[in-house]
Amino acid sequence: MKRNRTIVSVLSLLAVILCVSWVNRAEEGEKVLFTNSISEDATPAVLARIMQAKENSISEIKFEKGTYHFYPDKGQEEFCHISNHCDVMVSTAFPIRDFKNLTIDGQGSTFIFHGIMIPFLIDQSKNITVKNLSVDWHEPFYSEGLIIANDEVKKTFDMQISEAYPYEIRNDQIYFIKEYYEHSLGQTILFDPARKAIAYNTEAYTNLTTVKKASVSRYTENIKYKYEVDLRSPEYKNLGRENRLFVEELKPGVVRIHNHGKKMPQVGMILTAKGEQGFNRVAPAFRVTHTYGFNANNVTVHHAGGMGLIAENSADLILDHFNVTPSNGRMVSTTADATHFVGCRGKVELKNCILTNQLDDASNIHGTYQKIVDVLDDYRIGVRMGHSQQQGFQIGIPKDTLGLVRLSNSFFPYNHLTIKSTEYINGRYQIITLNEKLPVEVQVGDLIENLTAYPELLVENCIISGNRARGLLLSTPKKTVIRNNFFSTEMEALLIPVESGHWYESGNGANIKITGNVFQDCNHSGLNRGIIRFETDDDNENIAFNNIEITNNKINHFDNLILEISNTNNLIFKNNTIVNSGTFPMLYPENPAIKVKSSKNIVFEDNTYSGDAELILASDESIPNLKFH
Amino acid sequence: MKRNRTIVSVLSLLAVILCVSWVNRAEEGEKVLFTNSISEDATPAVLARIMQAKENSISEIKFEKGTYHFYPDKGQEEFCHISNHCDVMVSTAFPIRDFKNLTIDGQGSTFIFHGIMIPFLIDQSKNITVKNLSVDWHEPFYSEGLIIANDEVKKTFDMQISEAYPYEIRNDQIYFIKEYYEHSLGQTILFDPARKAIAYNTEAYTNLTTVKKASVSRYTENIKYKYEVDLRSPEYKNLGRENRLFVEELKPGVVRIHNHGKKMPQVGMILTAKGEQGFNRVAPAFRVTHTYGFNANNVTVHHAGGMGLIAENSADLILDHFNVTPSNGRMVSTTADATHFVGCRGKVELKNCILTNQLDDASNIHGTYQKIVDVLDDYRIGVRMGHSQQQGFQIGIPKDTLGLVRLSNSFFPYNHLTIKSTEYINGRYQIITLNEKLPVEVQVGDLIENLTAYPELLVENCIISGNRARGLLLSTPKKTVIRNNFFSTEMEALLIPVESGHWYESGNGANIKITGNVFQDCNHSGLNRGIIRFETDDDNENIAFNNIEITNNKINHFDNLILEISNTNNLIFKNNTIVNSGTFPMLYPENPAIKVKSSKNIVFEDNTYSGDAELILASDESIPNLKFH
Repeated sequence: MKRNRTIVSVLSLLAVILCVSWVNRAEEGEKVLFTNSISEDATPAVLARIMQAKENSISEIKFEKGTYHFYPDKGQEEFCHISNHCDVMVSTAFPIRDFKNLTIDGQGSTFIFHGIMIPFLIDQSKNITVKNLSVDWHEPFYSEGLIIANDEVKKTFDMQISEAYPYEIRNDQIYFIKEYYEHSLGQTILFDPARKAIAYNTEAYTNLTTVKKASVSRYTENIKYKYEVDLRSPEYKNLGRENRLFVEELKPGVVRIHNHGKKMPQVGMILTAKGEQGFNRVAPAFRVTHTYGFNANNVTVHHAGGMGLIAENSADLILDHFNVTPSNGRMVSTTADATHFVGCRGKVELKNCILTNQLDDASNIHGTYQKIVDVLDDYRIGVRMGHSQQQGFQIGIPKDTLGLVRLSNSFFPYNHLTIKSTEYINGRYQIITLNEKLPVEVQVGDLIENLTAYPELLVENCIISGNRARGLLLSTPKKTVIRNNFFSTEMEALLIPVESGHWYESGNGANIKITGNVFQDCNHSGLNRGIIRFETDDDNENIAFNNIEITNNKINHFDNLILEISNTNNLIFKNNTIVNSGTFPMLYPENPAIKVKSSKNIVFEDNTYSGDAELILASDESIPNLKFH
Repeated sequence: MKRNRTIVSVLSLLAVILCVSWVNRAEEGEKVLFTNSISEDATPAVLARIMQAKENSISEIKFEKGTYHFYPDKGQEEFCHISNHCDVMVSTAFPIRDFKNLTIDGQGSTFIFHGIMIPFLIDQSKNITVKNLSVDWHEPFYSEGLIIANDEVKKTFDMQISEAYPYEIRNDQIYFIKEYYEHSLGQTILFDPARKAIAYNTEAYTNLTTVKKASVSRYTENIKYKYEVDLRSPEYKNLGRENRLFVEELKPGVVRIHNHGKKMPQVGMILTAKGEQGFNRVAPAFRVTHTYGFNANNVTVHHAGGMGLIAENSADLILDHFNVTPSNGRMVSTTADATHFVGCRGKVELKNCILTNQLDDASNIHGTYQKIVDVLDDYRIGVRMGHSQQQGFQIGIPKDTLGLVRLSNSFFPYNHLTIKSTEYINGRYQIITLNEKLPVEVQVGDLIENLTAYPELLVENCIISGNRARGLLLSTPKKTVIRNNFFSTEMEALLIPVESGHWYESGNGANIKITGNVFQDCNHSGLNRGIIRFETDDDNENIAFNNIEITNNKINHFDNLILEISNTNNLIFKNNTIVNSGTFPMLYPENPAIKVKSSKNIVFEDNTYSGDAELILASDESIPNLKFH
C-alpha cells in the first residue's frame, strides 16, 4: 500500500515536470507556470525549479488557480534563527535566496501547508513580489475547546473538543496532536464566538495558570555559571516549575480541567491553546531577511504557526491588501503577530490590510538592543543578544551607525559609531568591529542600537480587530503615519514603548501622526491601560518620545482611560471625539480619560468628550496645569 | 559583581592574545602555543586563532601543560546532524575545517568542557593529529544514585543522590539538573561499584520501566500522513505514552521510586541514568567527518555526552592509546559508544586502547542503508534516511560504488551503480544522480549501500570492559583483524550483524580474523546470547558472513553459550580454550556452548573445552553432522 502510494507520487512528480510550461524566456529570467497537476504535493516540483534558478533564472512563478498542498517531507530544510520566533529546523518549497526581480503570482490559488514549514523564506534578495494567493495550514498550530460547564467552588471547568483537535491525556496533562506536531495547553486565551473576537475581560480568566513551583529543587544552587544565563531561554523552561493544572476526560471529546487559579472560564466561550511560550512559534508564513524591496499584494494568510510576516534587516516592504484572517470557522488566524519588522529601513507600509484574530499584535516595528559584554580592544566589542528569540540577529551592515546607550542616563545614545564588520560567533554572541575608536566612557553593560535601521512607517486604511494583544507597537523614530484605520484590540490599539530589559526591542517612537482612525472598544480584555499609550519600562523622568500629533480620531470606548502619556515632549491632541460606547460594562470607572506624566509641551485642542470619566485629564507635577480642551 | 567578572575575563583574553607565542613560522603554517593564562575559559582565544587560519595557517597548536576550561558561551555554534547522535546545536572552540597537516598537542593537559560542546569538530580535513591530552566534563551528562533500600512487595526502591547530582522533582518525576542541561531518568542501568562495571544480571532490574500507554488518545487516528513517518523520531517520542514511575523525596538526597515493573534494584548497586533515548547524545568528544587521515595518540576521554569518537565518511583513522575511562570516581565514561565509524574507508585502527565503562559499544563499524523512495528518472533516485539519527548522512562521494539491495532476496547487492552526485534536500531526503542507467528491476523500497565506504579494521592490544552493550560491532566486509584484546562486556564481546530495519546500519562481516583475545565473563547482564555472535535480523537462510577465522582465544565464561553462528560460510574455530570461570551463577545452564544455524563450511579444530555445558555444540539441519573438536 505504502509502496503503491509512493509510486503514484513519483509519477505525479514526473507528470509535473512535464507540465511545467516555460511560457516565456524573458531576458531577466523565465516565466514559470505550475499547473494543478502538482497540487497533491507541490513541494518537490516547486523546489526543484527554484534550486535550478542559479543556472536558469526565473522572473515569474505563476500557479494555475487551484488548491496546492505543500508537505515538508521533500522540502528544503534549514535551521533558522527567526527573530521573535523559536530557533527551528524548517522546511520550505520556496527558498527565495539571492533572487532579483521575482514575482510569485498565485492567480487566486490557495496554498495549504502541512507541519513545520515556512511557506516563503525570502533572503538576500531584491524586489520580490508575492501576489494573489492565500496561505493556510491543513491543521493549525493551536487548538480550541468550547466551555460547557464550570464550578467556581471546585475550581474546575469542562471543555468540549471536536474531532478536528485530536488530543491525548498523559499523566493528567492534555496534549493536542497534529500532523508532525503537538502542543500542550501552554498559552491560552478565551474567544467569544458571538463576536468572533477575544472575550471581554479575558484577563480575569486566562492565561490558564498552568505552572507552579516545583515540589523539590535539591542542590541546584550548586550549579554556578561563569557567564550570564538567560533563565527565560527554552532550555531552562522547566527549571523550578511543575504543572499546576490536571486534566481528566469525562467522556470522548469532553475534558475537565482542575485547579485553575483565576476565574473559571464562562460557558459558551471558546478556549484557544497554543502550547508553551518559547516553543509555539515555529512556522511563520513569510520570513523576509536582508531583502531590499518586498511587495505583498492581495495575499491572505489564514493561518501560520507564528507570524504572518516577520521581516528582519530588510528595506522597503510594502504590504497592500495583505490580510490575516482565520479560515474554516477557526477563531484564530496566526498564532503570533500578523506582521513584525525588526531592524528594517527605508519604508514599511501596510495599506488596506485586514488583520484579525491573530494571537499577537497586528504589527510591531522596532530595532534591537544588544548588550556590550566584552570590550576586546580599541575597535572591537563582544555583544550579547538579550532575548533568546533574538539569537542570531545581525544588528547591522557595514557603515550603519550604532548608538551607544546607557538607559540609566538617557533613552538616547551618548555616542555614535559606525560598523566596519560583524563576526558571527554564535546565536548569543557576536564580535563587532567599528570604524572609529571606542569612546573612553564605554562600559561593559552598555547597549548598542542601530540608528540607521529604523524605517519610515505608514499604516493606512487597515482593519485591526479580534486579535490578542496590541494593534501597533511603534518603536521607530522615523516619520510614522497611522491614518484612517479601524482598531478593536484586546490590549492597547497603539503602544509606543521604550523597553530594554525584557524583549530588548530598541527604538523610541517620534514624529508620529495618528489621524482619522476609529478606536472601537479596545483594551477590553481587562488590563488597566490607555488605548493609546506611551510607556517606558525604566521608571525615570527622561524624555523618550517626541513630536506626536493625534488628530481627528474617533474613540468609542466602553471604559474611561483612552490615553496615557509619559516621558513625552511635543504632543498635540486635537479634534478628536471621545464617546462612551456602552458595549461592555466599565472595568475601571475610577480612571480619568487621560493620564500624563514626566512630559512637557503637551497640548489639547478642540476635542469633544462625551465619555463618563469624572476627571477627564490627570497630570503629574511635570506638567501640573495641563487642561483638556 | 557580574560586570567586574566580565572585565576580568576580557583582560585575561587580552593577556592571552599577548601570551600566544608564535614559536615558529614554518613553511606549512605557524606553531601556536597557548599558555595557562587562558585556562579559565580557553574558548575565545583558541577559537579566535583557529578562525584566522585561512589567512594565517597553522601547523601545530600546543598547550602548556595544565587544566583548561572550555565554555560554550563564546564558542562557535553549529547545527549538526551527527550520525547515531541527536541533531543538535553545538558549540566548539576547535572547528577544524579545511585544515591540512595539523597537530594539536596538549602536552599532558586536561581539557574540561561545560555544557553542550563538541571538543573537536574535524571536517573536510587531511592528516590531523591530536595527542597528549585528556577530555572531561565539569558536570557529566548522566547521573548516579546509590540503591539503599527496596521493597519487592510495594514495588519501590530508594536511592541516595549526592550533591554532585542536583535534581528536581516535578509532578512526581525526577530530573537531574546540570550546567546548561538536564535529563530525566530515561535510559538506566545498574553498576556494581565493587567491580566498577555493569552489574551482573542487570537486565532483570533495568532499564527502569519508565513509560506506559497514555491514558487517553482521542481522535488521533484522524491524523493521516501522506508519506512514511518514523514514529521512533524524537518529535513523536511522547505519542501514546505517559510516565509509569513516580518519584518522591524521602529526605534531602534520598528519593523513593515507585511502580518499577522489573525486579527492584539491589541495595549497594549504583543506578546510572542518562535521560531519554533520542535526546541524550548531544556532545561527543571527537566528531570527524569527510577527513582523510586522523590520528589520536595518547588521548583520554574521561567523559562525553555521547561517543568518545564518531567518524563519518572519513578514511585512515588511527587511534593509538586512545582511552575512554571515567574520572572523579564516576561509574561512567562516555554516555554512548567509545568509538563509532560510519561509512569510513581506508584503514581504521584501534591499538593499545583502554575502553571502559562507556554506556554503549567500544566500537561499531558500519555503513548505512538508505531506502529508495522515488525513482525520478533513468539516472536519479530519491532516498530516505531510515533512522532519525542518520539524518543528513551523505552516503558517498562521486565515483563510489553503490549496491542495490533487496534483503528479502539476498544480503548482497543485486546490482551496482556509481555515484555522479548527491543533492541534499533535507535530513531525511536526498536525491542521488548515478553515472549509469538504473536497472529495470529497481523498485521503490529497495535499499542502497555504499560498497566503497567500508574500511579495513584492526583492533589490537585493547582492553574493553565495564561498559554497557557490546565490545565490537563488525559490519565491514573488508579485512578485519581482532587481535590480543581483553573483553569483559555486559552483552556480546563481538557482534557481527546484518540488520536493516531498525538502525539501517549496513555491511556484513567477512574476512575476519579473531585471534589471541581473552573473553572474560562477557554477556553477564542477562541476555541469552553468544559472546561471539553472528546474527541477521532477517530470518532467512541466505549467507551473510564469509571467511571467518577464530583462533587461539581464551574464553573464561561463567555461563555456557559462547558462540552463535548463523548465515555463515567458511568459518574456522581453532585452538581456542574455553573455561568456566565460576565468577557468577550461570544464567542459562540449559544452553549449549555453541549454536550453529543456516551455515556451511564450518570447521572446529583443536579447541579445548572445560566448561559446564552438557551439549557443547548444537547445529541445525543446514549442517547436521557438525562436531566440536
